[in-house]
Amino acid sequence: MKIGVLGTGMVGQTIGKKLCALGHEVRMGSRQAGNEKAVAWARSVGDKASEGTFADAAAFGELLWNCTSGHGAIPALQSAGPDSLRGKVLVDVSNPLDFSKGPPPSLFVSNTDSLGEQIQRAFAELRVVKTLNTVNCDVMVDASRVAGGEHTMFVCGNDAAAKAQVTEILRGWFGWRDVLDLGDITNARGTEAFLLLWIRLWGALKTGDFNIRVVR
Amino acid sequence: MKIGVLGTGMVGQTIGKKLCALGHEVRMGSRQAGNEKAVAWARSVGDKASEGTFADAAAFGELLWNCTSGHGAIPALQSAGPDSLRGKVLVDVSNPLDFSKGPPPSLFVSNTDSLGEQIQRAFAELRVVKTLNTVNCDVMVDASRVAGGEHTMFVCGNDAAAKAQVTEILRGWFGWRDVLDLGDITNARGTEAFLLLWIRLWGALKTGDFNIRVVR
Repeated sequence: MKIGVLGTGMVGQTIGKKLCALGHEVRMGSRQAGNEKAVAWARSVGDKASEGTFADAAAFGELLWNCTSGHGAIPALQSAGPDSLRGKVLVDVSNPLDFSKGPPPSLFVSNTDSLGEQIQRAFAELRVVKTLNTVNCDVMVDASRVAGGEHTMFVCGNDAAAKAQVTEILRGWFGWRDVLDLGDITNARGTEAFLLLWIRLWGALKTGDFNIRVVR
Repeated sequence: MKIGVLGTGMVGQTIGKKLCALGHEVRMGSRQAGNEKAVAWARSVGDKASEGTFADAAAFGELLWNCTSGHGAIPALQSAGPDSLRGKVLVDVSNPLDFSKGPPPSLFVSNTDSLGEQIQRAFAELRVVKTLNTVNCDVMVDASRVAGGEHTMFVCGNDAAAKAQVTEILRGWFGWRDVLDLGDITNARGTEAFLLLWIRLWGALKTGDFNIRVVR
């Protein structure tokens, strides 16, 4: 499959590398073609990896991944243009982290709204599925890295077929066995707010290699 | 031990009943002595249960539990007065839930502050320990109710001795085996924000009898 990854940070690099390892073709998008990090990433990953603008990556991908910093998500998608987005699934793994007030980060949208909802409202032509934003990027692509994979990943979004497709990807490509569908995209308020606890757990546990398991 | 429980709702009733069953004397406080729910609760629980004003309950207790609705916490403690609070541990199980905008509830303080911190700032004479606010009240007092008790409870607060005392209570009285100390009271931002996910999980699972286990 041809996949567009928006964002050149650690999350985009890790997901893009994994997708290439699975045999997919990945184009990493950034504000300008020739972005130093994107070029280095593509070179290190090999033939299946390429880079370009956000618009290039969005046009290239049959499936899109939002791996921008939270602030960068909407501008990146705006620069892609509606024709490259229409009808496509966007896997939104970003978080609305605000580092401007110093550590620990807070959220620039929360409580009564979420970044997932903002993206879905701004781009009605996209089918946004919020997921993976509750773990670090190494765990995102390899659930077995923590506790043998015995922990929970959430999905939410307004399009049932898109959620089913992303759930299959989580299970088949990244090893997630416990995938919990929370419902529509407003549930991103819950999974994004979890970051405020995740940050505290990271501080207490001194590692980002953890997750939560929902038990009944 | 003599224990003051602030609040007459389901949380206060459940915790107060459990504390009496463990052999403690519990006085339930509300805005006015003779509160109908508090009187009925005390009658149903028996000799070890009594009721009165918030000030009565605070003066009575060697240990205090904040089981008010979030909005009621600071007024309740103000009406108790500093002499009844000085040096005492307050177990704060409340959440800053705002139902005024219709379902689902949002939080009236979040992200860059928390109700736990507001209480600690307003009452420096109290030793606030935030805990139990991440599960429903039946699970609070009986961890084994869910998954044989194999799940996590968080504590946070500024006073190490107070946290140690509350951790012993969680373990010995309520059966919590996995108690995770997050650090100071600012960590209440994390555990209170979790409510925004808890509400969504409650909606998806159709039961409040669940919790999360932190796995590494």
